[in-house]
Amino acid sequence: MKPIEVKRQTLRFQNGNAEATEDHVVTEYPVTVKLNEQELVTLVCTPEYIEDLVIGFLASEGIIKRYEDIQDFWVQEREGVVHIKCDKVNPFYEKFQNKRYVTSCCGISRQGFVFVNDALTVKKMKDFRIKLSVEDTFRLMNEMQMAATVFQHTGGVHNAALCDVNGMILSRMDIGRHNALDKIYGYCLKNQIPIQDKIIVFSGRISSEILLKVAKIGCEIVLSKSAPTELALELAEELGITTIGFIRGDSLNVYTYPDRILIG
Amino acid sequence: MKPIEVKRQTLRFQNGNAEATEDHVVTEYPVTVKLNEQELVTLVCTPEYIEDLVIGFLASEGIIKRYEDIQDFWVQEREGVVHIKCDKVNPFYEKFQNKRYVTSCCGISRQGFVFVNDALTVKKMKDFRIKLSVEDTFRLMNEMQMAATVFQHTGGVHNAALCDVNGMILSRMDIGRHNALDKIYGYCLKNQIPIQDKIIVFSGRISSEILLKVAKIGCEIVLSKSAPTELALELAEELGITTIGFIRGDSLNVYTYPDRILIG
Repeated sequence: MKPIEVKRQTLRFQNGNAEATEDHVVTEYPVTVKLNEQELVTLVCTPEYIEDLVIGFLASEGIIKRYEDIQDFWVQEREGVVHIKCDKVNPFYEKFQNKRYVTSCCGISRQGFVFVNDALTVKKMKDFRIKLSVEDTFRLMNEMQMAATVFQHTGGVHNAALCDVNGMILSRMDIGRHNALDKIYGYCLKNQIPIQDKIIVFSGRISSEILLKVAKIGCEIVLSKSAPTELALELAEELGITTIGFIRGDSLNVYTYPDRILIG
Repeated sequence: MKPIEVKRQTLRFQNGNAEATEDHVVTEYPVTVKLNEQELVTLVCTPEYIEDLVIGFLASEGIIKRYEDIQDFWVQEREGVVHIKCDKVNPFYEKFQNKRYVTSCCGISRQGFVFVNDALTVKKMKDFRIKLSVEDTFRLMNEMQMAATVFQHTGGVHNAALCDVNGMILSRMDIGRHNALDKIYGYCLKNQIPIQDKIIVFSGRISSEILLKVAKIGCEIVLSKSAPTELALELAEELGITTIGFIRGDSLNVYTYPDRILIG
């Protein structure tokens, strides 16, 4: 396996002094996915949990529906190529790939979806199965940050964690914003982890793409120390997801569905 | 034009108290680019400087070589569609789009390039035309951060600036990491801004993609308050670019080509 961080000679200036030093730097690794021997995509990622990443990517893009759809999976480590054999590829995938979701009024749909595949692969959360206190929220963000050791060394990756109300279950990191979530999604599909009581904790901004990943994984709540975008919040409203941002120190903002937060 | 930020009702918890408040949130706006009436791509972006964004994107992807290659450009504002008429589309573009750059040893090339188009669209910087003092570096980072007003409101965007040794020339922001740089690139091409004495200042991490954008724009130096990746530094070595990261307070790290930094 390739290393996820390396040491590198650096010239550091501090307090007016220059000093040759060693710095930890994260790696990036291109992984080309070949689906039934056709080149599908090249993901540039942090080189760990590659199988989970690819499974999560395929499910998130709507190319496969279940882990069982994959008949074979092998990795050419040195070449950075992952081969997938799969008879049940979603027939709509190629047709709609990256196609705008255009409604009759010819603009962005009221629901905020941009791409057809996203509209086809997510469902509205109708249940309110989890209740979080404000203290739970701070505690889960703290656990995620404690687990983010590579970030602490290098400052160079995004971190995501799968949690339930009792604590963190799984923590993944990647230089790519979406990859950390795809690694979690792939792990859950492969290991049949039930999602209905789970929460996603994310280190970065909640853009529309991140919100859609959370919805595809099937989580009701997303926590971030950073900001959401307006399109992400429109999607969260539409999809029934509780969005909490700017979790910093002893404060946080609840943007959508505060019904899942226990007050007092 | 669409707004770049909106106010939104938020439930804020602070010091144990809950309060309904208004928060500023950045928007995301899908722009579909149609090249010669064919759908090319949908960029999700902050809705300002759309023409510059699209020109910068087309040049950065190697689809056009010069601004003059564009014969016509019109925007359907309400639908979020940009139409480009262009007879001189790079004939290699479709053939190599997102294709891995595979050398005879069948791995990542020594140069660090991942995609063929990138290897075709960047050239090595052979000149050392700019010299920066450490104080210049802190000053330029500070100017970029002062200009980043939307970030200060919303915490939700990436900022990039084009500078020379005397100060900031142009500042752009976007929810998408690459878009802020494409907006700068498009502006420079359209307005024939000479690049040979310019510096890019960026708010986010320097990944391989960001480093390649800097090289495509044609700048010798990139400054960031954040971390670089190893692949970005390999590319910087290969392409002759000075990379400075972690510019915070009175310290910074010079990762590549310190020859452009004046010491003492």
